This record gives sequence, C-alpha cells and structure tokens, in this order.
Amino acid sequence: MSIKKDYLRPIDFKTGRIDMNHGAGGRAAAQLIEELFARAFENPALREGNDGAVLPAPPPGHRLVMATDAHVISPLFFPGGDIGALSVHGTVNDVAMMGAQPLYLAASFILEEGYPLADLKRLVDSMAAAAREAGVAIVTGDTKVVEQGKGDGVFISTTGVGWLPPGRRIAGDQAQPGDVVLVSGTIGEHGVAVLSLRESLEFETAITSDTAALNGLTAAMLAAVPEGSVRVLRDPTRGGLATTLNEITRQSGVGITLDEAAIPVLPQVEAACELLGLDPLYVANEGKLVAVCAPDVADTLLATMREHPNGHAAARIGVVTEDPHRFVQMTTRFGGRRVVDWLSGEQLPRIC
Amino acid sequence: MSIKKDYLRPIDFKTGRIDMNHGAGGRAAAQLIEELFARAFENPALREGNDGAVLPAPPPGHRLVMATDAHVISPLFFPGGDIGALSVHGTVNDVAMMGAQPLYLAASFILEEGYPLADLKRLVDSMAAAAREAGVAIVTGDTKVVEQGKGDGVFISTTGVGWLPPGRRIAGDQAQPGDVVLVSGTIGEHGVAVLSLRESLEFETAITSDTAALNGLTAAMLAAVPEGSVRVLRDPTRGGLATTLNEITRQSGVGITLDEAAIPVLPQVEAACELLGLDPLYVANEGKLVAVCAPDVADTLLATMREHPNGHAAARIGVVTEDPHRFVQMTTRFGGRRVVDWLSGEQLPRIC
Repeated sequence: MSIKKDYLRPIDFKTGRIDMNHGAGGRAAAQLIEELFARAFENPALREGNDGAVLPAPPPGHRLVMATDAHVISPLFFPGGDIGALSVHGTVNDVAMMGAQPLYLAASFILEEGYPLADLKRLVDSMAAAAREAGVAIVTGDTKVVEQGKGDGVFISTTGVGWLPPGRRIAGDQAQPGDVVLVSGTIGEHGVAVLSLRESLEFETAITSDTAALNGLTAAMLAAVPEGSVRVLRDPTRGGLATTLNEITRQSGVGITLDEAAIPVLPQVEAACELLGLDPLYVANEGKLVAVCAPDVADTLLATMREHPNGHAAARIGVVTEDPHRFVQMTTRFGGRRVVDWLSGEQLPRIC
Repeated sequence: MSIKKDYLRPIDFKTGRIDMNHGAGGRAAAQLIEELFARAFENPALREGNDGAVLPAPPPGHRLVMATDAHVISPLFFPGGDIGALSVHGTVNDVAMMGAQPLYLAASFILEEGYPLADLKRLVDSMAAAAREAGVAIVTGDTKVVEQGKGDGVFISTTGVGWLPPGRRIAGDQAQPGDVVLVSGTIGEHGVAVLSLRESLEFETAITSDTAALNGLTAAMLAAVPEGSVRVLRDPTRGGLATTLNEITRQSGVGITLDEAAIPVLPQVEAACELLGLDPLYVANEGKLVAVCAPDVADTLLATMREHPNGHAAARIGVVTEDPHRFVQMTTRFGGRRVVDWLSGEQLPRIC
C-alpha cells in the first residue's frame, strides 16, 4: 500500500528540511511517516497505519505498567548518544524500574520548521537501533511541526508499556530500615558529557554519556533473588543520585546513610565536576539504577549486577535507617557526616 | 507524604511564572507536581509517585490498544476549548476509533520558561475535567521546561491505552465495496473556530470548536450492531474529512463516492470558509467521527448515533465502491462529479 507512486520525488534526506506541511496531516505528512518513521521502526502494528496500535493480550493476571517522558535535551547529539537513543532509554528504564518488562513504545515528535531532514533521519535511526537493542517495538506515533523559533529542533515524548507479573511490588515506598542501597555503576557521566559539550570543554580523557537501556539488567536482578527482596528500583536521572535517594526516603518514611568512599565516580568525572562547580551526586545519569534490597540478598544481587555489562561497576553504597526526618546522610571520606539534601536549584537545564 | 512542610511558601498560582527550576527534577519540580498536577489529576496510580503507573490486569483475552498525540495548537485557549481538553479528547478518540474503551492516559508537558502559572493551572484543570468526563484517568506524567524562545507556551503529548475485546477488528483496511459511510455530525467547526481567533475575525454567529471525547458514542454504536459490521472508525482531525477518507480508500484498496448535499456543515462555517478561502472538507474536526459500516446496519447505526449528544447531527454521506485507483469522488450539489484529493499543502498550521 505504498503512497510513493503518488509523488513525483522521494523525500530528500540529504539537503531537505522540515517544513510546516510535514505536520499538516496531508500528503507530505503521510510521506514522511512512510519513508522515515515506518521504515526505521518497522513492525506489524505500525505497518497497519491506524490511529493506534493493537497489541497482544498479556499473560493471565499480569498488570499493565505505563510510563512517559518528554525529552528536550540540548544539544541533540552528544558524546555517547543523541535524543533518539535517549528517548528510548529514558522510558524503557522507567517501565523497568517498576519491575515490568518494557515491550511497546509510543513516540511523539515536535519538530521545528527548518530542521535538517538528514539530522532527523540520524536521530530516528538511532532511536530505532536503541529500541531493537532494548527489545521494544515503537508501535505508534505522531508528528507535529512548529514554526521556526517556536521549538528547538526536535522534542521527543515517549510512552512505554509493559507487563508486571502477579504479586510483584517494587516501588519507592517499600524501603525498610536495615535494607541495603546499591548503585549499578559510576555516576555523573551523562550530565558531565552534555555540559562539557555545551561549554566546549575538552578533557584529557573523553567523558561519554552512560545512556543505556536497563531492562536486561533489571530482569537479571529480579530473576536472581526471591520475589519481594528487591524493594525499590529507580534510575537517578534529573537531580542525580542525591535527589533519587531523597525521593525514596520521603516515600518510604525512612532515612538513608551513604558511605561517600563507596560511591563510584570516574576520576575524569570527578575532575570535570570540580572544574564546572558541580557535585556528582546531583548530576544526571541515563544508564544507572539504584536498588534498595533486603540485607540477606545484597551480596547475590551485587554479584548478579556485576556480571551484567550495564552493572559491572555496581557497588554497595549505603543502608536504610529509621529516621523520622527522612534525611539522606553521608559519612564523608574524612569520617564526618553531612546531610545530602534535594537538588534545590537548576543544576543543569535540559539534560534529558 | 506531603513535601509542603519543606517549603516556605506554596506556589504562587496568581502571578508566578514557570522557571527553569520547574523542569530540573529537584525540589521545585516536585512541588509543581504535588501542588498542581497530582492535585488536579488525583488518582491512586499517580498518588504513588513512582516513575510509572501500575494498572489492573485486563479481562481475559483482551488486547491492548495504544495511541499517542502531540498537541501544539496555537492559540492555547480557543472558542469551545483549550489545549488541555484537546489533549485528552485527541488521544481518547484515537483509542476509541480502534474499537477499544480508553481507560488510562499518560501526559507529558513541555513548558516554556516564563509561561504564567495561572494559565497553566487553567489548562491543567481543564484537562482534568475533560478526563473525568471521558472516564479516563491521567495516571503518569512528565514535565520539562525549555528556555524562553525555545518553545511556545505549552506543548502536551498524551498517550492513551485501553482494552480491546477478543475478536474485534476495526481498522482502516476493513472497508468493503457496498459499505456505507456515515459522519457523526457537522464538519469544520474546530479549524474555523481556531483560525477565526487567529485572524481576529468575528462572525454574526459564534463558531466554537467541536472538541469532545467520542468514546461514549463509539461504545453505544458498537453495542447496537453485530460485531464485524462496523468496519472502520476514524476521527477526521488534521486534513479533515477529505484526508481521512483518502486514508481509508488507500488502506482498504477501495473507492468512496460522497454525496456533497448530504455532508452536514453549519451555515456559519460554510460562510466563514468562503471568507477564509477554506474548503470545509479539509478543515480539522476534534469531536466528529467517520464510520464505515455494512449496508444492512447503516440505519440502526445512524439512529443510535443520532440519539447520542455527540452524534445528533449524524448523516449518511456516501458509499464504498470498487475502484483500483482508490479515489474519493463526490457527486456535487449540481449533479457533477469531482475527485476529492488528499490535502496536499498546509491548510491550517498548528490546529491541534
């Protein structure tokens, strides 16, 4: 059912640019969907070309998990990734953090008039590759175009769904005093990579974003220990590790005590943060997770994480405590103790 | 688990404005979510405050339907609605057009720095009211902020899911020669209402957008006739009735012949279109649907539609024909015949 024969010329992905017609719902929009999005994301639901996607029934008793993220990162291409891959990883990870296996994504694009089609194609191809790698299908989408100066190149909102097995509950309010806090690897790379590019800084050792889909890692973790022993999973994106841990203490009504020396940070990230006046604890990650687990499974869970490519530098970084103030505190390298508060200002705008 | 006690002042919804901190994932973002979004959209899944929502398992054998829409309409408030209500209706309708009952929405907001919080609150309250009226819950969301001049007030992407009963197939490729084409009411109001406002035109009789959720109407229609006799449901939004019918003829490999005299258009819309140089066939609707059905159920379906508030002006407007060219043709009021082509330019930018 190609519409190509209706057109004199295929889309010019070398020198062409987005114009208002690409968002008008007529012929140009249909052509863009067919020659770019449907081709890159190729799957049966999308091929149907309806207003929505029909997807298989879940296994009996499985609940639905749904998560959404708008992506407005600037610049659109950064060391280690781009907004296309990021928009898949961000939402896949949100579904995975609920303990579900992400399966399907919806993607909506807000494009700025004049944006080069060659760059759009690069982003969409990257998005398709990220989805394939994560094992999810982009099954439905929408494209809108805004006038030059009313957007910023490309914004992508993605929504993910997946199935949650019966009886599983992994949530921010499940942490209990005595539980152990693990992190899946070194923190701060994503934010530092993006900011370095913005500030045109170069470091001796390149810093690349850690953007990655974590559903493979979470599946391995959940298979390794008894149901119920993983209490919380969360990816420390905007606001960084510090903000994520404060969300957990607030939701669970507990405290957390961190061991600063145990928190893994690459030396070049530490150096860059010093130069940029940033605290790695507040810098966004896009391929890391925090796990709170029962103390008796911590060793098994940590070993499982370290065996996975996305968890090879996993570490035990703290414990959950009883604390009516719900503080996150940290034992510093020098043996002192300080409160690690929420991010209160804007450390890094448009980081995801 | 209020975080209000952590703040000196509640958000100023009278004179305050969006600033970059509201998108940073820290304290200000959490406060905006708690005091605006969570309060307006109030439901158990959202109250949990996790990265995603956990939703009940579907009835056995039911498949998942998923649809998404980005909304970039300008201006944000228009006669008969606003971007908040529109963003609910648009996605609810896409799910309903697949024959599913929409149940849950995810919403992602891209806000421009400096946007008045009072206006944002109005939009969000309108969105919440539209969701309540449509019987759907906004269960998860995301908020990002871009610098002044990098957005245009508010963009809202919504994704909807619902359950599709076993055996039901309603899709653009199901139209068969001999089928009847129905429309649920007068066409063109939404586009004309928005454009009139943009052009500061005033008409003797006010024209308001038809924006509405159609899931009640589709449920009534599907309950009234045997499974399989409703072949296609589609809402003629961007590109209007003409473009929607062309999509159907392309997908189904058929032709459609319309009867111009039977297509309902309000006289004031007709007059406005003449003045504005628009053809109502190409003007966007946001509360209308096209149904293609088996000929033997057409009368029953039409009567059912006319009994529903959103279908009181429903009409039989054409028939499906055999046509290898897949043309939409129209018998004009003067007895002539012309091809009704796809929308090929940009008739109305940023209409939804």
